[in-house]
Amino acid sequence: MIKLYYAAHTCSLASHIALEDAGAEYFTERVSFETNEQNSPAYLAVNPKGRVPSLVTDRGVLTETPAMLAYIAQTFPHARLAPLDDAFAFAQVQAFNSYICSTLHVAHAHRMRGHRWADDESSFADMQRKVPQSVSACYALIEREMFRGPWVMGDAYTVCDPYLFTLAQWMEDDSVDVSRLPKVLDHRRRMSERPAVRKAIADELA
Amino acid sequence: MIKLYYAAHTCSLASHIALEDAGAEYFTERVSFETNEQNSPAYLAVNPKGRVPSLVTDRGVLTETPAMLAYIAQTFPHARLAPLDDAFAFAQVQAFNSYICSTLHVAHAHRMRGHRWADDESSFADMQRKVPQSVSACYALIEREMFRGPWVMGDAYTVCDPYLFTLAQWMEDDSVDVSRLPKVLDHRRRMSERPAVRKAIADELA
Repeated sequence: MIKLYYAAHTCSLASHIALEDAGAEYFTERVSFETNEQNSPAYLAVNPKGRVPSLVTDRGVLTETPAMLAYIAQTFPHARLAPLDDAFAFAQVQAFNSYICSTLHVAHAHRMRGHRWADDESSFADMQRKVPQSVSACYALIEREMFRGPWVMGDAYTVCDPYLFTLAQWMEDDSVDVSRLPKVLDHRRRMSERPAVRKAIADELA
Repeated sequence: MIKLYYAAHTCSLASHIALEDAGAEYFTERVSFETNEQNSPAYLAVNPKGRVPSLVTDRGVLTETPAMLAYIAQTFPHARLAPLDDAFAFAQVQAFNSYICSTLHVAHAHRMRGHRWADDESSFADMQRKVPQSVSACYALIEREMFRGPWVMGDAYTVCDPYLFTLAQWMEDDSVDVSRLPKVLDHRRRMSERPAVRKAIADELA
């Protein structure tokens, strides 16, 4: 059976929701960031990167949210979480998720994880000041150029939707002016009402 | 026919090599970073992110290297550039490429693109000082945990190989001690001798 290692309030929620969407049989194990459990020997044996999420399958461990989301979509094809028979449309799904991962999430990470890329307190403060601008620019691009509606990819719900929803929960903490993002905001509201989303969040906060 | 927008000495080389590996019919168009062409109205109409690479297909434009590499592998299945019929093995390919994109490339980018995440000259200098450490940590993980040999994924050459090769060209500029990375270094040397790689590089530097 599939096992998802997660931490609350992190991007692991996207894969958690996707597993619910897929109707997968799975269980979860929480990794405590409060006690730095992600860098414990036991967890590093699962994922030497010391990050969440990790997805343990019968074949081995998978990491990296875009890869895991595509894997969930491919492994549970009846759930129709990605256009699996159309390489171009699948690539559009993947391009969106790659942007979330490598640009939006990275911009966000400069608010609290500046130590990954710098050492001085003054640099961390500078990075934190820039986050509203850099994160807002990502959302402006999503709102204007990428989001089709009603779902990210248009009429079909895909694994892009839980990933956008997950990061969009952090907009206010990043001081993004959400009033300028009506599509992203409406999407977040509609996502929050889906039973799969409610169940995944309730599990993580239990 | 496929058209690849690229800039020399950037990650677009990975897709360029993959198109060669695939035996694709394609042509390329150079985007001049020297004249900030990536932010020209003409290029922003192709890719509103103002980044390279962009892949123009009959169906539309694709961006984001991990998505493009998977697309090339799926569109030219005879080239066997990814394990297309094995969702787990495909996810491992994708996880590697996602790590390159969102962690290794991002760490590298703090040497010259600090303005994306900060504003002060002192922060840029701090970021630059940290790059040897942060980039080296990525390569150490690749060397120790990810690289299987002789190719990234083991016996089978995949789209992971041109992506690793492309970024590995920048190791010395990032002050990485390559003597500690014998597998990555040997891979880079073997890659550099492949005709597809030589042709892509020669095209870009012509």
